[in-house]
Amino acid sequence: MHTPLVRKAAVIGCGVIGAGWVARLIENGVHVRTFDPADDVSSKLEAVLINSRHAYQELTNAPRHEEGQVEIASSVAEAVRDAGVIIEAVPERLDIKRAAYEEIEDSALSDAIVASSTSGIMPSILQDQMRNPERFLVTHPFNPVYLIPLVELVAGRQTDPQTIERAGLLFDSFGMHPLHVRKEIEGFIADRLLEAVWREALWLVNDGIATTGEIDDAVRFGFGLRYAQMGIFDTYRMAGGEAGMRHFIAQFGPCLKWPWTKLMDVPELTPELIDLIADQSDDQSGHLTHAEMERLRDDNLVALVQALKTKGFGAGETLARYERMLESRDQT
Amino acid sequence: MHTPLVRKAAVIGCGVIGAGWVARLIENGVHVRTFDPADDVSSKLEAVLINSRHAYQELTNAPRHEEGQVEIASSVAEAVRDAGVIIEAVPERLDIKRAAYEEIEDSALSDAIVASSTSGIMPSILQDQMRNPERFLVTHPFNPVYLIPLVELVAGRQTDPQTIERAGLLFDSFGMHPLHVRKEIEGFIADRLLEAVWREALWLVNDGIATTGEIDDAVRFGFGLRYAQMGIFDTYRMAGGEAGMRHFIAQFGPCLKWPWTKLMDVPELTPELIDLIADQSDDQSGHLTHAEMERLRDDNLVALVQALKTKGFGAGETLARYERMLESRDQT
Repeated sequence: MHTPLVRKAAVIGCGVIGAGWVARLIENGVHVRTFDPADDVSSKLEAVLINSRHAYQELTNAPRHEEGQVEIASSVAEAVRDAGVIIEAVPERLDIKRAAYEEIEDSALSDAIVASSTSGIMPSILQDQMRNPERFLVTHPFNPVYLIPLVELVAGRQTDPQTIERAGLLFDSFGMHPLHVRKEIEGFIADRLLEAVWREALWLVNDGIATTGEIDDAVRFGFGLRYAQMGIFDTYRMAGGEAGMRHFIAQFGPCLKWPWTKLMDVPELTPELIDLIADQSDDQSGHLTHAEMERLRDDNLVALVQALKTKGFGAGETLARYERMLESRDQT
Repeated sequence: MHTPLVRKAAVIGCGVIGAGWVARLIENGVHVRTFDPADDVSSKLEAVLINSRHAYQELTNAPRHEEGQVEIASSVAEAVRDAGVIIEAVPERLDIKRAAYEEIEDSALSDAIVASSTSGIMPSILQDQMRNPERFLVTHPFNPVYLIPLVELVAGRQTDPQTIERAGLLFDSFGMHPLHVRKEIEGFIADRLLEAVWREALWLVNDGIATTGEIDDAVRFGFGLRYAQMGIFDTYRMAGGEAGMRHFIAQFGPCLKWPWTKLMDVPELTPELIDLIADQSDDQSGHLTHAEMERLRDDNLVALVQALKTKGFGAGETLARYERMLESRDQT
C-alpha cells in the first residue's frame, strides 16, 4: 500500500472544525491524536466520524486508504509529540491561539508544520510570539472539512515559502483544493465574500423583508447552483453575452452606485434580532435533528461533487484527481 | 396531451435574459412571439435555443411538451396581441421600460399578465404610469433562465394579489421555483445578496489580493457547493453544532464588527480596474469560446440539479415536481 505524506498528525481543538479535520486525516490513512479540554469530546468526535465514514463510502469507489487510528490525548504535549503536521482548531481568540502555540512548540517535532484553522486572523499576528514561526501557516478549511475541497493557505511575514509548498502538497494529498492566498489580509478571500453576504442577509431579516427560509431559497434555487460550478466572475462573463466581462461591467457597473444594499452599517445583534433569526431558523429546519440535517447536507454534497466529476469540472475534478492518486499509489 | 396554463406568450426584449425566457416558454409548449430592435436577434436567439434544447434533452426523461413555436415579431404590437403573458426583458432603464409598457398596453389582451424581468427596480415605480397596473408584477429570473429554477415574484402597490397568485401557478408550471418577495425593496432578495458579494469581489481584485480566477476558485471549491443545496442560514445553523443558530450567532456575531470587509465604499470602476478585471477574466476563461463556456455551464447545472433530484432536495425537488406534473398531464 501507499505511504501518506505524513503518517501522524495532531489536531488541537476538536469542535466542529477540528473533528472535521480528524475525519479527513484518518480517511487518508493518517494516525491522529487530538486534544480538546471539553468533557464530551469523545461523543462529539464519534458523531462526526459516523458522518464522514458514511460520506466517503458514497463519495468514491477508488481504493481508499486504510483508516488511520484516532486517539484522544490528555494534553497538547501528548497529542503533538510525534506529529508531522499539527492543526490548530481552537476558538477564534488570539490569547487562546497563542497559548496553544506555546504548548505546541514545547513538545512538537522540529520539522512539524503548525497550521491554524482560523477563518480570518492574520498569520503574521498569530505567529509573532512563536519560537519557530517559519513553519507556521494558516490552512483555512470549510465546514464540513471532510467534504468541502477548498483550503486557503496563507503565509505570515515569518513563514518560510517552503512551508507553503509542503502544505500545498500535503493538503492536496488529502483530496483538497489548496488555494494560496498570496497577500495576507484579514478574512482571506472566501470569508470576505461570506461576511458581505451574511451582513446583507442579516439586514433582510432585521428589516422584515424575508425570513431565513426565504433567503435560503433565494440562494439555493438560484445563484447557489451557479456558484457550485463557476463562481462569480465566470458567471458574469457569461451574463455579458458574447461581449463578455467588459460589456457586463459597462452594463451593470453603474448599478453598484444604486442604493440597493445596506453596506454602510451592520445590524445591531439585539436580543430581539437574535430571537427572530433563531425562531425563523427553527421554523425552517427545526423538524430535522442536527444529525439528520448533517446527513442530508453530506448526501447532497456527495451527489453534487459526483455530478461535477462526471463533467470533470471544479470540485469534481478535485475528486477525480484524488481518485487517480489513490489508484496510482495502490499499484506501487 | 396536456394544455399549458397559457398557450401564447410574448417576450419583449430578446437579449440574454429575453432569449432565456423564450427557451423556457417553448420548452413548455407555449407559443412565443418576441420583439427586439437589434439586427442580430434571430442568430442570438437561435444560439440560446441550441443550448436550451441540449440542456432539456439531458435534464429530464419525463414526457416533454411539444415545443412551442417561436416567431420574431416586427413590433411590440404584433408580439403581444394574443399573448396570455407578456414578459418584458428590455434594458434596465426606467424610460425604456415605461415606453415598452405603453406600447404593450396599446395592444395587449385585457387579461394578459405583464411581467418585468428587472433585477431590482421597484414594481411600484415601473407600474406607476400604466393604464392597468393591477395586472403588472416583477418576475425576476436568473441566467440561464431555462435552467435556474428561481423566479422572484414582486408586487407593486397597485398590483392585484390575484396577479401574484396567477403568476405563481404559471411559473410553477414552467418548472420554476416562484419565490414571493412579500415586501417591495430595490434589488429584491437575491440581488441584494449578489450585489454585496460582487462589491467585495471587486475590492479583492482592485486591491490586488486575488485574481478573478482565484476568487472564483474560492467560491466554487468552497461555499458555492454549500449554497447549491442549503443556503446561508441552514449552513450556519449546522456550523453552530448541536446548539444551532443561537450558538453560531453568539460565537461569530461579534466578528461582524471586525474590519474584514470593505463595506463603507464602492471601488471606482476606473478604466484601469476594468482592464484588470477583463484581462484576468481572459486569462481565466479566454481559452473557451462563449458557446463552449455556456455549454459547460449548462452541462454542469443539469448534472447538479439531477444529483439533487436523486436526493429529492432543493432544485432537484423542483425538477421532480415538474416531472410529476408532466407525467400526470400526459395521462389525462
